[in-house]
Amino acid sequence: MVLSFGESHGRCVGAVVDGCPAGLSLREEDIQRELDLRRPSSAIISTERREEDVVEILSGVFEGYTTGAPICMLAWNKDVRSEDYAEIRYMPRPSHADYYAHVKYGGFNDYRGGGRFSGRITAGFVMAGAVAKRLLREALGIRIIGYSLEIGGVRAEDFTLDDAERNRYGNDVRAPTPEAAERMRERIIEARERGDSVGGVVECIAVNVPIGLGEPIFDALDADLAKAMMAIPGARGVEFGAGFAAARMTGSQHNDPLIIRDGRIISEKNDAGGIIGR
Amino acid sequence: MVLSFGESHGRCVGAVVDGCPAGLSLREEDIQRELDLRRPSSAIISTERREEDVVEILSGVFEGYTTGAPICMLAWNKDVRSEDYAEIRYMPRPSHADYYAHVKYGGFNDYRGGGRFSGRITAGFVMAGAVAKRLLREALGIRIIGYSLEIGGVRAEDFTLDDAERNRYGNDVRAPTPEAAERMRERIIEARERGDSVGGVVECIAVNVPIGLGEPIFDALDADLAKAMMAIPGARGVEFGAGFAAARMTGSQHNDPLIIRDGRIISEKNDAGGIIGR
Amino acid sequence: MVLSFGESHGRCVGAVVDGCPAGLSLREEDIQRELDLRRPSSAIISTERREEDVVEILSGVFEGYTTGAPICMLAWNKDVRSEDYAEIRYMPRPSHADYYAHVKYGGFNDYRGGGRFSGRITAGFVMAGAVAKRLLREALGIRIIGYSLEIGGVRAEDFTLDDAERNRYGNDVRAPTPEAAERMRERIIEARERGDSVGGVVECIAVNVPIGLGEPIFDALDADLAKAMMAIPGARGVEFGAGFAAARMTGSQHNDPLIIRDGRIISEKNDAGGIIGR
Amino acid sequence: MVLSFGESHGRCVGAVVDGCPAGLSLREEDIQRELDLRRPSSAIISTERREEDVVEILSGVFEGYTTGAPICMLAWNKDVRSEDYAEIRYMPRPSHADYYAHVKYGGFNDYRGGGRFSGRITAGFVMAGAVAKRLLREALGIRIIGYSLEIGGVRAEDFTLDDAERNRYGNDVRAPTPEAAERMRERIIEARERGDSVGGVVECIAVNVPIGLGEPIFDALDADLAKAMMAIPGARGVEFGAGFAAARMTGSQHNDPLIIRDGRIISEKNDAGGIIGR
Repeated sequence: MVLSFGESHGRCVGAVVDGCPAGLSLREEDIQRELDLRRPSSAIISTERREEDVVEILSGVFEGYTTGAPICMLAWNKDVRSEDYAEIRYMPRPSHADYYAHVKYGGFNDYRGGGRFSGRITAGFVMAGAVAKRLLREALGIRIIGYSLEIGGVRAEDFTLDDAERNRYGNDVRAPTPEAAERMRERIIEARERGDSVGGVVECIAVNVPIGLGEPIFDALDADLAKAMMAIPGARGVEFGAGFAAARMTGSQHNDPLIIRDGRIISEKNDAGGIIGR
Repeated sequence: MVLSFGESHGRCVGAVVDGCPAGLSLREEDIQRELDLRRPSSAIISTERREEDVVEILSGVFEGYTTGAPICMLAWNKDVRSEDYAEIRYMPRPSHADYYAHVKYGGFNDYRGGGRFSGRITAGFVMAGAVAKRLLREALGIRIIGYSLEIGGVRAEDFTLDDAERNRYGNDVRAPTPEAAERMRERIIEARERGDSVGGVVECIAVNVPIGLGEPIFDALDADLAKAMMAIPGARGVEFGAGFAAARMTGSQHNDPLIIRDGRIISEKNDAGGIIGR
Repeated sequence: MVLSFGESHGRCVGAVVDGCPAGLSLREEDIQRELDLRRPSSAIISTERREEDVVEILSGVFEGYTTGAPICMLAWNKDVRSEDYAEIRYMPRPSHADYYAHVKYGGFNDYRGGGRFSGRITAGFVMAGAVAKRLLREALGIRIIGYSLEIGGVRAEDFTLDDAERNRYGNDVRAPTPEAAERMRERIIEARERGDSVGGVVECIAVNVPIGLGEPIFDALDADLAKAMMAIPGARGVEFGAGFAAARMTGSQHNDPLIIRDGRIISEKNDAGGIIGR
Repeated sequence: MVLSFGESHGRCVGAVVDGCPAGLSLREEDIQRELDLRRPSSAIISTERREEDVVEILSGVFEGYTTGAPICMLAWNKDVRSEDYAEIRYMPRPSHADYYAHVKYGGFNDYRGGGRFSGRITAGFVMAGAVAKRLLREALGIRIIGYSLEIGGVRAEDFTLDDAERNRYGNDVRAPTPEAAERMRERIIEARERGDSVGGVVECIAVNVPIGLGEPIFDALDADLAKAMMAIPGARGVEFGAGFAAARMTGSQHNDPLIIRDGRIISEKNDAGGIIGR
């Protein structure tokens, strides 16, 4: 279980991970590495606030290993200038939660920088995710690879999973190929020069997932993943396998024959995103 | 809370709804009406099994009103010929859960007709949904309208919500306009004649939802809805508001100004699907 | 997870067990045996309503084994004469939920026979418990033995666990020795002749429980057991190991030295009820 | 929801409270007051470790009011001398979790001072409880009064609720009368001089609780309270109303007639502890 806490302009942002098994090797630098990747890599392409988040593990880790107890992690907020945001209170920004939070919480919400509804709290998601990724890899051998598939209408093409893994952290838009990265970056800069911004699509692949994770019916694996994805601020949709394209396929196109390769039964095309039956 | 039970070729399919407030008017015919709409309306366009599900309320309702106790509802299975499916046990169907359920449950799963992983269990979803819809409408004044936006590549166009509500049950593909219904139906029949099937997109709209439903961060309303949607067998994706199209918009295009209309603060375009801030 | 449904004078009482692993041998007669033990064994010592509950398994079991799907079980109510209870509506019984349910549910509760707040719904607990006991025994080798330790002030003494297991179902008060049974029975009859009833204490022992069940802090095993026990209508308290007697012990009396016997580390006295550290 | 984190000799102990409504007045001093009451009041009667816990609120409070966001609170550990406890690793203390935690967590548990299984983590319970008490009082007008009913065999007698409320914090054993406090204190000192300790019973009363809290069957109010009580390290039992004494009452003695007093329907004796019907 993950619990997120903290606000954009409060004292800190963080997360508590409860239920992580004991004995997982985990040090602050393991989490810091992921946090650093989250940090806006250049003033050109993202918000100008330059947070140098430093994670601290407050509990649940002893002598470099998880103990089975709740892992509380946080980063102290540094670059906080509340006064910048005082005006939000009475002038809610469009497409932000400002107005809705005001109504829901009867005016008691911390409005500074969006407070609880700021992209900043995703720093806590990254901390929790760093623990989860490590656990999945060490305990189950599952590899998770995410990257920017599309930004500003530029879609990365012709790449393998290995390409993505090799390239994504070598460019500041986390694209799977240098070519796509270059063009995505241009789009961002163009928009920025007009005082605008662009959208995008993130693709995430989990390799080596065993059969049978998740519990039917209402706690299916893709159901849980969809829920988690929609908790990311600004997310508007989530799809698996062929996704919405499946709506225009026929059954025979979408059907995913079971084949035997190297002595293992696998599906041929993965149009279901590896998740069948709920 | 909803718990689903039953299997395709077991004794019944059903659901238990726990937590429904007392005092909601609810009779079997209220649920039956929704179940009848679920029933394959003609042998031409769907599976040939003709289930005439008759719902029975076993608990939680007294003298026509909910009591606050768990509502157990079910429909007995009638048209069950197990022998038809015996071969599935050793010949799993592609894109079905047959093989995966066999692995996950060590061969103990009820394989007949897909067992627990059959579209048939959605009859239980409909029963629970009928209670939920009634509660939302009576207690909160929320109207829910769902329809087939696209089937086999045919997308319904130029219709209002009122059109959808008026037309959707007047045709057997639940389309919002008679024109779309006719063309969708053709696509289905064409595919069927080739021994094939088609995909589609369902659109669902909730009207009059108050501000503030759902709990940030990980139990946001759209997160919960996404999870529920992905529990529907065969679902491959879910989107809200502008959805995946938002990925190709600029911030200025996607931005949803707050405006005042008839004395109420509303967002102008609804590109966020009415859900902002998580 | 267990969900209980049904009412005293509704159509049925039952339970759904979700999360039982696949492959557990389970037949209706396994559950019926436990239900029969619950049945008032003679008109002399308990309520005169003579329910011959017959359990039916509606889902989750296939060819004699659990499938991993939710197990819905119920018994139809037979001996239902609603008219007997009509007066309760306006004349709530003391020490019953009648009045409180009326207030909580705004008068919509099923008041017949206490409705949802009747001892009768424990038939569903027994069904779920029968599955749980079977699973614990088959999967983990855990044996659960419960019996009436004390009734009407008569406390069973000088017996072993084997005595309890051998004797408890041989008398109609479920006492661990014939002597205690005889005297408990007398007390019940005496009270009954005065139009009264008596209280008692049930002792329950789990043998062969592995170290480490339950999750600290708030889901400790004894915490979960305490919660479950307090769901039994009429329960007023629960204790573990030395229980309330521990309040009058000194630390040195209550301390439970770890000793090694037959090569296993065990505690010497079990004053903590086998549950230490939360 | 409450999540507890921290260890005896780790960096801190704390808690996160999620779901507290917005708009509750809450300052660190409100919590500090309760924490101070928890602190061992004199070296004579309790452990010699003198923790001067200072609570910090890290999130969820803005300008003196809760915001509706998770409230993370902690106290940094100061008086930590790990070396004192190094020997526990290989010499588990009786009646402590040392050995069991070692087995459950494969040796990865933080063994220093009991780690996660130390009385020290109840400091986090106190923080969360301080928020809960404040909310109950401000939002529902519910008053909670707890005190030491019995220590070392000395039971406080002949006192009213007002006596308890007035006296309990005026003595270092939290007794409801000065007489009882004096005698309890003696017993503790006597035991201490022998190198021993004593047990006790805490009584806790909630006044002005509205009818209908808790959800039947398995989330009844007393079931939830029992679970929470059993999470307290060293607790061996919990009872409500007449508690275990009810086992020796007859039905007519235990029956709690509904009477009308000052125009309100109340039960006469409260032998059910105010909780009837589950």
